[in-house]
Formats: sequence, C-alpha cells, structure tokens
Amino acid sequence: MTQEYRIEHDTMGEVKVPVDALYRAQTQRAVENFPISGKTLEREHIAALGQVKKAAARANAELGVLDSQRAEAIASAADTVISGEVDAHFPIDVFQTGSGTSSNMNTNEVLAELANRALEGSDVEIHPNDHVNASQSSNDVFPTSVHVAVTNALVNDLKPALDVLASSLEKKAEEFSGIVKSGRTHLMDATPVTLGQEFGGYAAQVRYGIERIDAALPRVAEVPLGGTAVGTGINTPAGFAARVIELLSEQTGLPITEARNHFEAQANRDGLVEVSGQLRGIAYSFMKINNDLRWMGSGPNTGLGELHIPDLQPGSSIMPGKVNPVICEAAIQVAAQVIGNDTTVSLSSTNGAFELNVGIPVMAANLLESIRLLANTSRVMAEKMIDGLTANEERARFLAEASPSIVTPLNKVIGYESAAKIAKHAVANKQTVKEATIALGFVEDGSITEADLDKALDVTTMIGDYR
Amino acid sequence: MTQEYRIEHDTMGEVKVPVDALYRAQTQRAVENFPISGKTLEREHIAALGQVKKAAARANAELGVLDSQRAEAIASAADTVISGEVDAHFPIDVFQTGSGTSSNMNTNEVLAELANRALEGSDVEIHPNDHVNASQSSNDVFPTSVHVAVTNALVNDLKPALDVLASSLEKKAEEFSGIVKSGRTHLMDATPVTLGQEFGGYAAQVRYGIERIDAALPRVAEVPLGGTAVGTGINTPAGFAARVIELLSEQTGLPITEARNHFEAQANRDGLVEVSGQLRGIAYSFMKINNDLRWMGSGPNTGLGELHIPDLQPGSSIMPGKVNPVICEAAIQVAAQVIGNDTTVSLSSTNGAFELNVGIPVMAANLLESIRLLANTSRVMAEKMIDGLTANEERARFLAEASPSIVTPLNKVIGYESAAKIAKHAVANKQTVKEATIALGFVEDGSITEADLDKALDVTTMIGDYR
Amino acid sequence: MTQEYRIEHDTMGEVKVPVDALYRAQTQRAVENFPISGKTLEREHIAALGQVKKAAARANAELGVLDSQRAEAIASAADTVISGEVDAHFPIDVFQTGSGTSSNMNTNEVLAELANRALEGSDVEIHPNDHVNASQSSNDVFPTSVHVAVTNALVNDLKPALDVLASSLEKKAEEFSGIVKSGRTHLMDATPVTLGQEFGGYAAQVRYGIERIDAALPRVAEVPLGGTAVGTGINTPAGFAARVIELLSEQTGLPITEARNHFEAQANRDGLVEVSGQLRGIAYSFMKINNDLRWMGSGPNTGLGELHIPDLQPGSSIMPGKVNPVICEAAIQVAAQVIGNDTTVSLSSTNGAFELNVGIPVMAANLLESIRLLANTSRVMAEKMIDGLTANEERARFLAEASPSIVTPLNKVIGYESAAKIAKHAVANKQTVKEATIALGFVEDGSITEADLDKALDVTTMIGDYR
Amino acid sequence: MTQEYRIEHDTMGEVKVPVDALYRAQTQRAVENFPISGKTLEREHIAALGQVKKAAARANAELGVLDSQRAEAIASAADTVISGEVDAHFPIDVFQTGSGTSSNMNTNEVLAELANRALEGSDVEIHPNDHVNASQSSNDVFPTSVHVAVTNALVNDLKPALDVLASSLEKKAEEFSGIVKSGRTHLMDATPVTLGQEFGGYAAQVRYGIERIDAALPRVAEVPLGGTAVGTGINTPAGFAARVIELLSEQTGLPITEARNHFEAQANRDGLVEVSGQLRGIAYSFMKINNDLRWMGSGPNTGLGELHIPDLQPGSSIMPGKVNPVICEAAIQVAAQVIGNDTTVSLSSTNGAFELNVGIPVMAANLLESIRLLANTSRVMAEKMIDGLTANEERARFLAEASPSIVTPLNKVIGYESAAKIAKHAVANKQTVKEATIALGFVEDGSITEADLDKALDVTTMIGDYR
Repeated sequence: MTQEYRIEHDTMGEVKVPVDALYRAQTQRAVENFPISGKTLEREHIAALGQVKKAAARANAELGVLDSQRAEAIASAADTVISGEVDAHFPIDVFQTGSGTSSNMNTNEVLAELANRALEGSDVEIHPNDHVNASQSSNDVFPTSVHVAVTNALVNDLKPALDVLASSLEKKAEEFSGIVKSGRTHLMDATPVTLGQEFGGYAAQVRYGIERIDAALPRVAEVPLGGTAVGTGINTPAGFAARVIELLSEQTGLPITEARNHFEAQANRDGLVEVSGQLRGIAYSFMKINNDLRWMGSGPNTGLGELHIPDLQPGSSIMPGKVNPVICEAAIQVAAQVIGNDTTVSLSSTNGAFELNVGIPVMAANLLESIRLLANTSRVMAEKMIDGLTANEERARFLAEASPSIVTPLNKVIGYESAAKIAKHAVANKQTVKEATIALGFVEDGSITEADLDKALDVTTMIGDYR
Repeated sequence: MTQEYRIEHDTMGEVKVPVDALYRAQTQRAVENFPISGKTLEREHIAALGQVKKAAARANAELGVLDSQRAEAIASAADTVISGEVDAHFPIDVFQTGSGTSSNMNTNEVLAELANRALEGSDVEIHPNDHVNASQSSNDVFPTSVHVAVTNALVNDLKPALDVLASSLEKKAEEFSGIVKSGRTHLMDATPVTLGQEFGGYAAQVRYGIERIDAALPRVAEVPLGGTAVGTGINTPAGFAARVIELLSEQTGLPITEARNHFEAQANRDGLVEVSGQLRGIAYSFMKINNDLRWMGSGPNTGLGELHIPDLQPGSSIMPGKVNPVICEAAIQVAAQVIGNDTTVSLSSTNGAFELNVGIPVMAANLLESIRLLANTSRVMAEKMIDGLTANEERARFLAEASPSIVTPLNKVIGYESAAKIAKHAVANKQTVKEATIALGFVEDGSITEADLDKALDVTTMIGDYR
Repeated sequence: MTQEYRIEHDTMGEVKVPVDALYRAQTQRAVENFPISGKTLEREHIAALGQVKKAAARANAELGVLDSQRAEAIASAADTVISGEVDAHFPIDVFQTGSGTSSNMNTNEVLAELANRALEGSDVEIHPNDHVNASQSSNDVFPTSVHVAVTNALVNDLKPALDVLASSLEKKAEEFSGIVKSGRTHLMDATPVTLGQEFGGYAAQVRYGIERIDAALPRVAEVPLGGTAVGTGINTPAGFAARVIELLSEQTGLPITEARNHFEAQANRDGLVEVSGQLRGIAYSFMKINNDLRWMGSGPNTGLGELHIPDLQPGSSIMPGKVNPVICEAAIQVAAQVIGNDTTVSLSSTNGAFELNVGIPVMAANLLESIRLLANTSRVMAEKMIDGLTANEERARFLAEASPSIVTPLNKVIGYESAAKIAKHAVANKQTVKEATIALGFVEDGSITEADLDKALDVTTMIGDYR
Repeated sequence: MTQEYRIEHDTMGEVKVPVDALYRAQTQRAVENFPISGKTLEREHIAALGQVKKAAARANAELGVLDSQRAEAIASAADTVISGEVDAHFPIDVFQTGSGTSSNMNTNEVLAELANRALEGSDVEIHPNDHVNASQSSNDVFPTSVHVAVTNALVNDLKPALDVLASSLEKKAEEFSGIVKSGRTHLMDATPVTLGQEFGGYAAQVRYGIERIDAALPRVAEVPLGGTAVGTGINTPAGFAARVIELLSEQTGLPITEARNHFEAQANRDGLVEVSGQLRGIAYSFMKINNDLRWMGSGPNTGLGELHIPDLQPGSSIMPGKVNPVICEAAIQVAAQVIGNDTTVSLSSTNGAFELNVGIPVMAANLLESIRLLANTSRVMAEKMIDGLTANEERARFLAEASPSIVTPLNKVIGYESAAKIAKHAVANKQTVKEATIALGFVEDGSITEADLDKALDVTTMIGDYR
C-alpha cells in the first residue's frame, strides 16, 4: 500500500484511509486505536468471517431482505475473502474491541468495497451496514465466525494430524511388540513390559485426544448467528437464524448447528472454553509421551539408553558429537504454550457480562494458534522422530532381567514377605533374583524347584496378553 | 485412640502402632513419614477403596485365588469400610506416596484386621498383601478407587445438584418472562430483552454443564483395575480384570468399565484431567451468572437495581442497614477454588513417567473437593438466593425505554447512519428516541409516520420469540 | 531470498542453504526440523544475542583466546546483528531445541559469515564454533541472552510506559479531587469517596507494579554466562565469566551481574518465572482498573454513568450511535494474554532436569511478548482513554447523597443498631436518610438536633483527608 | 456444644444460637447461610483477627473512643482468641461473604461475649459493633488480618523452614564435593560436574526462595487498617490509622506498615497475589530439586543409580522389596497444590470492584495453606530424605568417564569438528574417548601426545573452581 490517503467517513466523521485499502473508516479507526501487538486475525478466522457473510447474504436474498443482485455481489466478494487473497486488508490488531466489532466492520467494509467494484457502472450501491451486515450484528457474527473457524481447524487440521501421530505410534507398537524391557513405576525398577505395550499406550492416549475433541464438538459447533444484538434476533426476518446456519453448514461442510438457547449462546463462549480444556489435555498427553521418549533415549552412555532417537542436528555448540532429542523438546514447549493459551481462553470467561462476552478476539487467536501448533507438532513428531525410532533391544532385555521386581511371581508361591527378602538380598549382594532365591534356601527347603523357579523368573512370561 | 502402643512388623521391621488402631505397620510408617497437611482422604474416596477391595475379594473367590471363607470375611470387612464407621483408621495425609500405595496398604491392613477379628477362633488368617491385596497392586487399585469415587460424586451429587439449580433458574425464567429490561453489551445500553430470557440463558448454561459432565464420563468411568503393577496384569488369574470390574459396577450401580488400553490407563490420569476441565467450565459459568446477578441487584440506590436479592445477613460492621449479595460472593469464591484445584489436577499430569503417575492422591483430593463444593454451592444458590429473587419490574422497564439503542428497528426504515444520528442526538440532548426522531425531522420529512414510529419503538416488540 | 541454494556442511554432513543466506548448515537444519509456529525470535532477543557475542569476542581477545583481528571482526559483525538489519537471517522457529542451541548456532553462523565477508582477502577465517562461540556454550549464551533482553525490555520499555500511565492517572486524580461520588463495596451503596481518591488508588496500583519489577530485577539481571556447558566453565580461560559480564553490562547499560551460583543459574530459569509472576500481577491490576472504568462509564442511560470515556469508534454494526469502552476491553484482553503467557513461562520450569532447562525459547517468547503488550497498552490506555476522561459531576454527587450508607456517621451518635433502622427505613420508603431519621423520631426525642444531623449527613465531610 | 439454643438478635431480628456458643446472631446466620466446604479459617488467621482487635481497642482507648475499662476487657478477650483456646467458636465456612464480614462479626461477637463475662457484675456492657468494632470496618480489619497472618507465617514458619532445607542441602554439597559425576543436558551425556556442585545449586535455589519472600514482604506487610469502610477512614479519630498499626506491629513483632495509599490498599489485594507468585516459584523449585533427586536415585538396577534415597517404607503392595522416593513424590504433590492455590489467589483479583475485593477469605485460606505446606515439606525433605542421602560414588565416576562429552577439552587443541568425529566414533564403536582419539590417528599425526590426551581427558580437571 502507498502512503497516499483518501477520505472516508462513518457515523463519527471523516478518516484518512490508505488510498489502496479495500477497507474504510471504521477499520482505519481501529488500526489507529489499537497499536498493541502487531498480530492480526488468524487466516482461518478471516475465511470464516467470509463464510458467515456469504451465508447471510444468501439467506437475506431468500428471505427478501436483499435483492439478488446485491446478495450475489456480496457472496462473490465473500469468496474472495475466503480465498485469502485480500488478507492484507484485514490489518486490525487482535487486541481490539472485545466483541470483534472492528473486525466485523472490517469485513463489512472490504466486502462492500469489493462488491461495489464488481457492480461499478450499475446504479446499485452496497452499504457495509445496511447491506453487508443486514440481519446481523457483530455480537452474533463474530462469535459465530470463531466457532466456525475453530470447528474447521479441529475437523480438518488437528484430528487428521492426531490420526497421523497415532498411526505412527501404532506402527511402532507393532514393530516393538517383541521387545521386553523393564517396567518403571515411581521411576524405580518394576516388572517387565514390552516396548510395544508402551507405544500402544501412547497411541491410545492420542486416540483418546481425538475422542475428547469429538466430545466437545457439539457445543463448539453451536453458533449464535441469528441472535443479532442481544440474542433476541432483533432486525432479522422470520426464519433467518435457521436458514443462515443451514447455508453456513452446507457451505463449509461442517456440522454447524443453531444455538439451542440464543441467550446462552450470545452471552457466553463456554463451548470455546470447553474445547480449550480438551486441547490442554492433549498437550499434557504430549508432555508425557515426549518425556518418556527422551528418557528412554537418554545417554548414549549415562542414561537409560533403551531407544535411539533419530539424529536431526548437532546438539551442542561446545560439546562435540552431542545429539539431543530436539523434537521432544519442541513438542513439550508447544504443550506449554497450549496450556498457557488455555489459561487465556478460559480466563476470558470472566470478561463477559449480561448479553455479551468481550474477550472474543483473544480467545479466537489463542485457540486457533493452539490447534495449529498441536496439529503441526503431531506431524513433526510422527515424521521426524517416531517413524525413525529404533530400539536397543539387547539393553532393554538386559535391564528387564536386572529388575529385582521380577521376583513378583514368587508372591503366589512363597508369599509377599519371603519374596521381599529375596529382592532385598539380590540388590544388597548384587545377585540375580534366582541367585538370591537359592542363596536364601528356598530351593533347598523345597519351597520351589529350580525348574519352577526358572519358569517363574522368565521375563517373557510376565508381560501378559494385553496389546 | 490411646497413647498405648503395640508392636507390628512389615518387610522393613518393627513399628509401634497405637494399641486400638485397626491398621498396622505400613500405615503407621506413612503417618510418620508425611506430617504435611493434616488432611486425609475424602470420605467418598475411602468408601471407593472399600468397594474395590470387596469386588476383588469376590472375583478372587470366583476365580479360585481365595477360598470363600476368606473372601467373605474380606468382603464383609469392606462393607464396614464403605459405611464410614472406621474412617478414623485412615489417618494418612493426602500428601503421601504419589501412587497412593500407603492408602492402599492402609485399606489392606484395616480389612485384614477387621476380617481376622471376625474370624477369631478359626485357624484361618488374613494377610494384608497375600489375601486382601491378592490379584491387585496399588497401581491399579488406587487410581481405580479415584475414578470410582469421582464418578460416584459426579453422578450422585453434582449432577442432581446442578439439576436443582437449573430448575430453580427455569422457574424464575418463567416467572420473569414478561419483565422487559435493557439488554447490555460492553456494559453499554443495548436493545431490550426480558429478564426471563436472561434467566433462561443461565439455566441453559447450567444444563450445558451437566452435558459437559456426561461428555467426559465415559473416560472417567474407565478404570485400570486388573492391570496390577504395570498394566500387564501380572499375578492375576485369567479373566480377572473383566470380572472384578463387572462386580464393581454392579456393587456401586455406576457405569464403570474396563480400560480399553491398560497401559494408557495405568500410566495416565487423563480422564481425571478432562473432567477437571469440565468442572472448571462449570465454575466459570457460575462466575458469570453470579456476577450478572449481583450487578442486577446492585444498589439499592446507586446501582442498577433491577433485581432484589434476598436479605440473608447484615452486610457491614460499620455501615448500618447494608445488605450484600453474599451467596454470589461465596459462589464466586468457590469458582476460584475449583479453578485453582483444576490447575493442581491438570499440572499433576506432569507427575507421571513410564508406567505410573505419582500425583494421584492430590488429584483425587482436589477433584473430590471441587465436586463437593460445586454441588453444595448449586443447592445454596438455588435455595438461599435464586428461589427468593424478585424483580424491580418498573425500574427494569424504565431503563429499557431509556436505552438509546431502541433506535435499532429504525435501521430498516431510515438506514443505520440516520438512526445513529438520532441516538446521538437523544443522548446529547437528554431526549427520548422518539423526541429525537421528531426533532431531527424524520417524521416531518415523511421518512416515518408518528404511528409507525411508536410501533417501531415499542420495546415489547423488540424481544423476539426466543424463550 | 532466492530459490537457489549453495551447499554447506556441519558435523553431520552436507545441507542445501539458500544462496543468499548469511546462515549455514545448522540453521538450515533447524529451519527444516521445526516447521511449527512460523514465529521466530523477538527482535529484542536477536539483539541481545548480538550483545552477548560481542562481549564474548572482546573478553576472548583480552584473555588471549582470540587474536584481536578476529575479535574485532566478530564484534563488528555483532553490531550489525544488534542493529536489526539482518533479522531476516534468523528464520528459526521459537519451538525448537529447548536450549536455544539452534538460535545460538544461527547467531554463530551469521556472525562468522559477516565477519568472513569483512575479512575477505585476508587469510584469516572465522569458524562459527571455534571462534565466534569460543569460551561459550549455548547453555550459558542463550539463557543469558534472554535475561539481557528481558532486563532491557523491563528497564527501557515497560517501566517508562507504566510511568506514563501512572502519571496520566495522577493528573486525573488531581483533576477529580473535588468530585464526590458514592463508594461501592460488594457493588452496594457505601459511604462517599472522591473520584480523585479512586484515581489516586489506580495510580498507586500502577506505581506498585513498577516496584514489583524492581523487586524482581536483581534476579532477572543475574546471568549464567561463563558457565559454558554445565556451569563449571569448562573451556573458558580464568576470569572469563567476570570479565565478559562486565563488558556486557557496560555495552548494554543494564545492571547485568554474574550468577552467584553458576549451577543454579545454569539449570534453572527461576528469575524469569519470578518476573513473569510480577507481570501477571500488573495484568491483574490492569483488569481491575479497566473494569472499574468501564463500569463507571456504563450507560449512557441504563448504567452508572459517572464517567464519560472518550468516543473512539462506532461501537456496533447494528445498534446505531452506540459507543463502547474499547480501550478497556483491549487492555483486559491483553491482561488475559499476559496471564496465559505467565502460565506458559512458569510451567516451563518443569522442563528442566539436572544441568539445563530445555524450555527456554518459549519462555523468552512469552515473556518478551508480555512486556511488549503491557508497555504498549499502558501508553494506549493513557493516551487514548485516561487523558480524555471527563466526570459526570452532578450525577456522581446525586448518587453519593442517595446512598443509604451515609447514615454511617450516626453510629457514633445513636449507635449502629438505631442507624441500621434509619437506613432500612429510608430504602423501604424511598426517603432520604435525613427524612428517615426524622420520621423515626430521633430528632424529636433529642438524640440529635436537626442542625447536627445536617452536618453529620454532609457527604463532603465523609471523604477523609487521604489523597 | 449442646443441642440447646438461646435466642440472640441483630439488626435483622432474632436467631437461635447454641446455648454454649460464645458467638451471637450474625455468626449463626453465617453458619446457616454457608454450608459449603466444612472448612473454617486457618488457626493463624483467627489469631491475627485477635491481634487487630486488641490493637484497635488499645488505640481507641488512647484516642478517647473507648473508656479504658472497656478497652482492657476487649484486649484481654483478644488475648484469649489469640491463644487458640476458643477456635471452636469460629465455625463460619471459608466460602462466605467475600469481605470476611461474617468472620469479623464473629470476632466482634466472641470478644464482646468474653469481655462481658469478664465484666459480669459491673454495669458496663460491650457491644460487638459499637465497642469491639469501634473505628473499624470489616473492609479494613479483615484484609489487615490476612496480611498479618500471612506475614507472620512467612517470617516465622516458612523462612526458617527454608533455611533448614537450604542448610541440609549445603551440608550435602560439602559432603559430596569430591564426587565426580556426569553432567546431563537435554538428559544427554554432558561434561562432568560434582554431585556437590549440583547440591550447591539446589541450596542456592532454596536460598533464592527466601530472597523472593523478602522481596515481596514490604507490600505484604502493608495494611489498610484505618481506612474503615471505603478507605477514607470514616468514623475514625484523627491519628487512628498510624497508631493502631504501630501497636499492631509492636504486639506481633512483625514489620507491619500503614498503607501508603489507602484506596489502593482497600480495593486490591495485589500484595497477596505477589507473594503467592513467589510461593509458586518456590514450588516450582521444589519440583526441579525433587525430580533430579528421584532420577538420581532411580533404579536400583535399571535407572541412573547415582544416589541412594533413604528407605522409609515398603513401596509396593505387589512388588516385594520395592522402595520408592516417597518424600520426593509428596513434595512434588505439595508443589502442585501450591501452584493450584496460586491460581485461586491470583484469579481472585478479578473479584474486586471499586472500593473492595470480595474474594478475600478464599485468598487467605489458600495462601496460608500454601505456606504451611511448603514449610512442613521443607522440614520433611531435609529431615527424612536429604540428611540421609548417600552417593554411589563409584557408579557416578564410572558414568562421568563414560560420557562422550569429555571430548570437549579437545576443542581447543584439534577444533570442534575433529572432536565431534572422535565422540561419534567412540559411541558408535563402544570405545572410550581416548581409544577413539587414538583410533582416528590424532596421536599418531601429532595433533596431541598421549600424555596430553590423558591430562585433557581427566574428568577431575573438568569440574572447574565453582562451588
């Protein structure tokens, strides 16, 4: 854009606007009022605003509020906005009026301008409020756009990405199904598991994350559109809410539904808080999985050394040859960001009173960032790390057999207290459990035969049937 | 309990235990090791431990691990624990070993003692580990007990309490359905709503809270029982997990199910984190509702004064005659506590590694407290406040008509920009919207007739059809 | 940058790097490994890395580790990095290796490249590790750069901005010192205050925010530089830590000091967590101030209406003439963001083990964003809102006198219980406190003369001496 | 207390009170209004209320508001409350009116009752509001009591406990100063440190916790007393605030000071939020220390095995002989609780408007619990764990020498890239670094002599001079 300006006006008077801008006075005021973060709406959010406007124009035409020429011009302009071509004309800071009115008016202005350009030569004019915003209010449009953008990001970005991650873990679970290793509880030596069982657990955890998104979706996909200013639907024609949402759902291919209670839906963003909580849960799952992985990969010589994590880059500017579990670390940092974003989103609940929450833009920005981060990280984890993991099978088996907890099957033969004596003796005297059992006379006194002892202490029999 | 002691032993040696204690050495060690908070397990949690032990004894009998005499003695002792009679014998601090092993052993010891007393005279003896804990580990028993206690508290305490609250709000929504008031967005005068619509919104918000609990329940009700030490089910007979959980579900009447993946279930408490997130959402809903109520009740003379909140107690030690919205304040403080508890619960996710989370007791204590607080507060809100609310109908109507935003219906007649001029003129000149419309010449110039103007500005026509 | 590539190598092999890039192989690897957020280091952070490298080059020269030609070339290249000219050559994602090794190596590579270009023609070559990184490790350089950037942002951006805000509030406190209004406690009518007293309170709250920053600064300004890989200072010459930090402090004009314990400083970022907590406190102060302001400005006709907040932009796309407290809303959303960022920063504490925290880049990004947001918002609040506030003096005085709590001075004359009767009588019968006092016979029975009553009920005498 | 009742009255009418209760009508109303948590004020908090009332009675006597007989009776009754003898007469739930008015009135009533009993036979009577509460309001008394209780708990409980912990760690740092072990960064093998250096770092971290408390104390110790209802000091004699706080400071021996701005102090509890943030920091420090300790103690056979943590209790109900790091786990759970409590405290900031925060009781309860938990845990950590730690010196040294990062000193001799080749070769071929250096020909080609190589690779030379 140039440094030249044109004069635009709104109900407050005149404003200088960059001459090439598709937007007008209200957008410009907002740009000047909020020089705060330099961060604008997420791409997906702008697209969702376009979708809402397009559906509204179509519903308005059907219900006689707009003539078809205007409606088509607006809808066509909305397609341009949806495409991303004119994102540069959405310059308003995230930290703006809490209803997103500025961004709604930005959309109205850009659409009016685009539509007017398309209609140039005709005597029809499109007004940002009277036509583009007809039957609408920022108070229903903007939150609706957030729910649409979030639903879309969940359904079309995060869920598929989690599926990629879960599948990658499941493939490894299969590959590692024969690798026996020591279980660890309280970080201390426990009875054996297979590495495959652990990876199966991680995969299940990720799949449960998908379930958690699905559990929240019905309330995320419920939108206040049609409630206009305060939920009453003032200035809408009969049937508008139902129809515009039907069109919106059809356009986007998303399971968008009308608010069952327009006053709840107008005043609260609880559905966003709910799904933010689910994202937080997924983030904590990522922390657990990545912590386990980097511990199993710790070493090469002074750590657990059960897994080899792919070498992606030199790990130290001073310690030559060092390689670090960098994807794990990036993922854990993403998790910390998502958990912090969740604080912002949920705390923004307190920013509502009576008929409107006024913390919506910041909720949107944080939620959409969180979804994007989790989705990208899922893919990076799968492709750059998990797919390339290899097990140090020998060491894993060695440690499994070194765990004094493999005495556990003897509980049923000689009782918990005698078994405890064996375990303690083994550790104290650096003996195997078998050696300790014999040393303490349990074979000699006929408590168990040596053959039965061997069978009981075979770690491959201790891993159960679960996959 | 007396100051006299008896000597008990465990695998570590001898311990002095209060002579009347039903517990033994391991419990006593834990009492001495954790002099931290003075807070012990929640009542419901002790009962749930009793339920798990009873189901395990029964399953062990069915599957040939225990003889029926022992199993019945243990099951009968478990009933005593479930009843609450012997809660004083569960003295261990919440801040203990992170697996709850101490509390599991406490339960084992108390049950062994109770069962042995019942069997006195017979030559049968019950060992805390070999019999009471047979086919079990703290690592599956203790988390299972938490999920059972939480599920129970959700189903039998919180959900009914939220229903009481929602019903109370719905009754008021009905009662207030004819009371027109000013809507408020951004705290600023907006178009009218009815007080009934607002209360209908609050009721919906509470009912959505119930839905949120239901959405999380399937994963809360899933338990790791049968996985024993590390999820492999070591030291259990075939079929144990399925059968013991079937019995547990039957005993408690709760929809308890077996973990679909025992390694996920053993290592993570994500289901608890998820439902904690839902409780947080309910808490934020309570904040919104109570903030609205106390603002509507603000005054009596310098505030909004639309509602009268029942007088429950003198409100000031210095300002005579002052009465405050104390239930709102208590509820908001409960909400803050639940939100803090949720931080504790979710953060405890980071306290897991490999096959075990070791932050379980603190998760349990916080979750069960949160549920209890929300349930009690729901009832207190309904019974001590909402049921007694009365509307200041006249003032509400007066304010509705004073809002300059009632100009909104004129958008469709004279356009948004002209309507804005009227609203501004009205405020600047302390006129009604009608007066301003006339003053600015819109009747004179034929834009609208006075009769149509009256109709357009009738606030009772602006509240829509939604209930 | 073009799409053409050159080949670079590092200890892992060859990498294709954009032909114009100032960076080399390790940077490129990191760009490819972390396609996560699209967000790179904050500008101030890159500058701080430059400062550290410059100080290190100078100290290395002084202590004989580098010849002066190389040292000067590196220092001069560092000046280029500090200036911001080459920020585009720092393309690595925030979500990277948790030590910031990638960004340290990025800096090493860019500096080596710039220095080599400057030295072109000479036979001296600069190696990223052996020369630029001499006597350093990512593990001390990167966290040091964060502490330097944060200290700088606090001292040179946030503190001055808070001073602007506090001064603006103090000016209003002076201007409003004669405006009597009703105090409000529990949102209910209380004894009078002046609007000036309230604004003085807000100003004090902001000034305490500055104190809170100062209280944390000593530990924020303490840096691990010189500890290299693990805190032991391996591969540094004697005296390096002290000298390099002296130079760093001198270069930046900041009160940077050497870690009192290099192992604490290497392993933990507690100083960052501490100052993040202080930022959170400031954010909560902003919430309180902005909530008060928007409530005092609520209306114009159905709210409290005590203040007029400057009109900045049309407030509604549907309700004509509506103007909203948009700066308050932006500020509260900033507060929510800062509070969420604080969760991310503090939670990242859990991302440390043994000699290193590996959540540093995300801590840096969140802290620096929070400081920037709070600083910008302080100025926006002052300049776009507070400076332009005007009081509705008449309404404020009217409400002050309408508060039944002005009966409070009568406590000392007729006792709390009698005073309570008057207050209740006044409210119930819509009388003034004076009328109620007379109606209940307290003048007649000689408890108080009418003249003394008038004096006691004069609101201007109830506001005390405090400013 | 018995089931018999007596009739009491207040400004709202009559109330049935347990016949033995020292309290009266307002307390009883509050008991009935808030059947929420079952949790009452912390002991220290009740004592602090007693201290405030005692100081107020004395100041009132000095300034002529109370006669000395009444003042002495009240002060003497306050001593009884301070002693803890009558705590059972403070039955009101924490979740009550947000100003703590109920607890202030509870204190007023108990003191009036005790004083009247002491004065029995005289014709002097003490009224809870007119005398005990003279020159006071709940709005200054209750928050002051919280700041006093918190200051006391910090100064006399937490700071000494942290000193015990730091001293215990310092003793171990000394004891372990000769034990060389592998450093670990990113969990991967790094250059050596001593175990003593690590413990010195932990001790420093704890000592910085003390500094953090000290940094916040000035604002915690600042109290609103004297501001009465809204900060203006209505109904106080001249000089009251300064004198009552002087007496309060003298009585308690604490550095209590008068609010510099009574409106800030009345309306906000920012000082509590600030110190809560510092407690959070200490909690995160505890997490780091305990995580390191339990990882170093992991094993005995499959973990790091560098430390032996004292055996306190059997660790598993199923795995015989297992012993777990239970104090670490309890401490980490305490940390999670403190961090959650901090959320509650800080979020309660949003619960203030105009002249009063109404989330004070819950802030107090959470802060005082957090301080108590951290103090008790500090002592438990020191006494039950750290004092008894022993190092596995041989294993630690073995691992230090096994780390490929001991190649680092060769950077300065043969450059980073050649050193990296050695490290990689050593790991790949399971050789020592020395063997790899020779194998790759660096001795043969004269890059380094074998003697210099031995010297360079001596781990005891890599640990630096820092303690």
